[in-house]
Amino acid sequence: MNLHQLLRELKESNGSKIVLVVADGIGGLPVEPGGKTELESARTPNLDALVREGVCGLHTPVLPGITPGSGPGHLGLFGYDPLEFRIGRGILEALGINFQVGSRDVAVRGNFCTVDDKGLITDRRAGRPTTERCVAMSKKLQTIQIPGVEVFVEPVREHRFVVVFRGDGLGDHVNDTDPQALGVKALEANGADEASQKTASVVNQFVAKAATVLRNDAPTNMVTLRGFARFPKIDTMEDVYGLKAACVAVYPMYKGLARLVGMDVLDAGASLSDQVETLKKVWDKYDFFFLHYKYTDSTGEDGNFAAKVEMIERLDAEMLKIRGQNPDVLIVTGDHSTPSKMKSHSWHPVPTLLWGRNCRPDAVVEFGESYCLRGGMGQFESKYLMSLALAHAGRLSKYGA
Amino acid sequence: MNLHQLLRELKESNGSKIVLVVADGIGGLPVEPGGKTELESARTPNLDALVREGVCGLHTPVLPGITPGSGPGHLGLFGYDPLEFRIGRGILEALGINFQVGSRDVAVRGNFCTVDDKGLITDRRAGRPTTERCVAMSKKLQTIQIPGVEVFVEPVREHRFVVVFRGDGLGDHVNDTDPQALGVKALEANGADEASQKTASVVNQFVAKAATVLRNDAPTNMVTLRGFARFPKIDTMEDVYGLKAACVAVYPMYKGLARLVGMDVLDAGASLSDQVETLKKVWDKYDFFFLHYKYTDSTGEDGNFAAKVEMIERLDAEMLKIRGQNPDVLIVTGDHSTPSKMKSHSWHPVPTLLWGRNCRPDAVVEFGESYCLRGGMGQFESKYLMSLALAHAGRLSKYGA
Repeated sequence: MNLHQLLRELKESNGSKIVLVVADGIGGLPVEPGGKTELESARTPNLDALVREGVCGLHTPVLPGITPGSGPGHLGLFGYDPLEFRIGRGILEALGINFQVGSRDVAVRGNFCTVDDKGLITDRRAGRPTTERCVAMSKKLQTIQIPGVEVFVEPVREHRFVVVFRGDGLGDHVNDTDPQALGVKALEANGADEASQKTASVVNQFVAKAATVLRNDAPTNMVTLRGFARFPKIDTMEDVYGLKAACVAVYPMYKGLARLVGMDVLDAGASLSDQVETLKKVWDKYDFFFLHYKYTDSTGEDGNFAAKVEMIERLDAEMLKIRGQNPDVLIVTGDHSTPSKMKSHSWHPVPTLLWGRNCRPDAVVEFGESYCLRGGMGQFESKYLMSLALAHAGRLSKYGA
Repeated sequence: MNLHQLLRELKESNGSKIVLVVADGIGGLPVEPGGKTELESARTPNLDALVREGVCGLHTPVLPGITPGSGPGHLGLFGYDPLEFRIGRGILEALGINFQVGSRDVAVRGNFCTVDDKGLITDRRAGRPTTERCVAMSKKLQTIQIPGVEVFVEPVREHRFVVVFRGDGLGDHVNDTDPQALGVKALEANGADEASQKTASVVNQFVAKAATVLRNDAPTNMVTLRGFARFPKIDTMEDVYGLKAACVAVYPMYKGLARLVGMDVLDAGASLSDQVETLKKVWDKYDFFFLHYKYTDSTGEDGNFAAKVEMIERLDAEMLKIRGQNPDVLIVTGDHSTPSKMKSHSWHPVPTLLWGRNCRPDAVVEFGESYCLRGGMGQFESKYLMSLALAHAGRLSKYGA
């Protein structure tokens, strides 16, 4: 019996409301020996108040030592085991630019690269072109037509773009054409089954035409494609948990991830304050609210400890309004850690607070990594966060008599 | 997706170096109520310094409550799930005497036993003969020849010896001939498949000839055989983790276990100080170093609390030199607990310290069982120690975009 089967069996509706605030990359590290993390350094009176009444812990997004991308990180928080539900790179890339991938689509991540006279790759990222050039080159690729399928090309940034092939019977078991090496040609696409062979044939035509279209545009005179992926079939949060769920996010990637699990994606404005206003406006229409806050991650990626602290304090200031909605369960956590010391996502467990009316108190009185280590939820796999949320919301019946 | 598949996918090379110091059986128990364990009693300034900068925890070698032997204990530390990778007793016994088992071999643990006139077993361990007698009796068994196979017999100690049958197409699904009871005959060997039937036939010939050869040597006048096993096919640490790994151990069993996962087994001398010198000498040639320290286990097995404390302090004294090599990740733990109070291996979780540059601090300032309980790694399955080591060494890329 897997977790989703169990929750389907036990789920109950009671009109309660759950808010999941994801402060992206909130977990951190001290910079100096004996120092505090970003979260421990931030002044967070409202989060601390929740912590004192709620229960804390640290979640491991995938497995100990594994650093998650945003996709696996969020799937775990939504209660979908990130090792079971794998989302292809092409789909994540398409989600990130808000491309609505459909059931007849294969999405692919594209890279502009540089080739010499013989077609041998000399720069896999085409010298990292400007995003303006990426847009211009993507426009050229948009002129490519292939009989029997529709082709969509959308720029991402620098050397990156997305291609979506739309047609009947297209498989996604196709190898990357990026050889991950210099001095060699881009690889031929091959399909591992009949439907994927059809895709591979389309891909090879596309790449040949791209080489022609871009031939005078060195260093962006060729493309490689990787991460062929169809839109995955995932049961919705409504199916599994019985929750009508809304996404209140600003950035396309997180909206896309929410759409993957069947959330309604709302127009949430551009700031945290807009997001909270959106939350208030639609409060009566949903059971579950996913509120995504980006800036704890981006400041961490920038290596800016002080800015990350400030972003945490800004989030803290909005917590009063969120709490003012009187949710039954209020969770604040991240999809992974992004220590500004490392300027990247990391594997470190993620501080988590869960507030509800039936929390068993623990000794934690402040929100922070070292405090959460003593929390009542202990260290747990992120996929169990939703079960805990449902339980605290009174939405799970007893298992067995 | 299993752990090894995931790590294969994410592994990266960066020239970093990982040292795993296994203080065999390091975990212990207090003897008096309110007392300290061996590790807590030992003065360990160098280990404590590592603890203050690193992260601590307790690992569970197999499952809660399960006491591991050296085989499963070490496999877990090397990142091989000891419930998935099972090493037959015959192989472990052969490893323990440094017998180089090959791909055409079936290795078996043998016991001398005593039988009466009717062939009924009266002592399953032949009155625990001296090791000298074991050697002499093994020499007699070495005279046995069986057409079509080579037979190797090597003494271990007391009533124990190893037999290796070498030949083509020998299976290892053969029952133990030891009936585990007195007053009955040794069992016939039977094979569960054709290849194992071939082995069983060889085994029955061997046992019959052994009975003849030993007929006048009561109480060592018969043998039983158990734990038929071929050398297991296990992917190497280089395959799975991309680590060129070296074993710096003194005792054959641990060298054999290291060889099982593809480590280069070095001539490490006879003392811990020799081992550390060996480590220095080969430092540039490897990415991963397994340094095995036996005496924390043997003093525990002897029930000698004070001696175990002293052995821990001796290890501590060598830590400065190991740290002086400037590894990127330095781990100190055991393969299991061996409380001197119990004079045996035990199931108690094993204190673990991991030192690296990106450890998230915890409150632990001293190395010991009760302190590790508050450590940042929490309580974890030993198979995840390698993932954590790789992560802290910067050797794992992000999972998912």
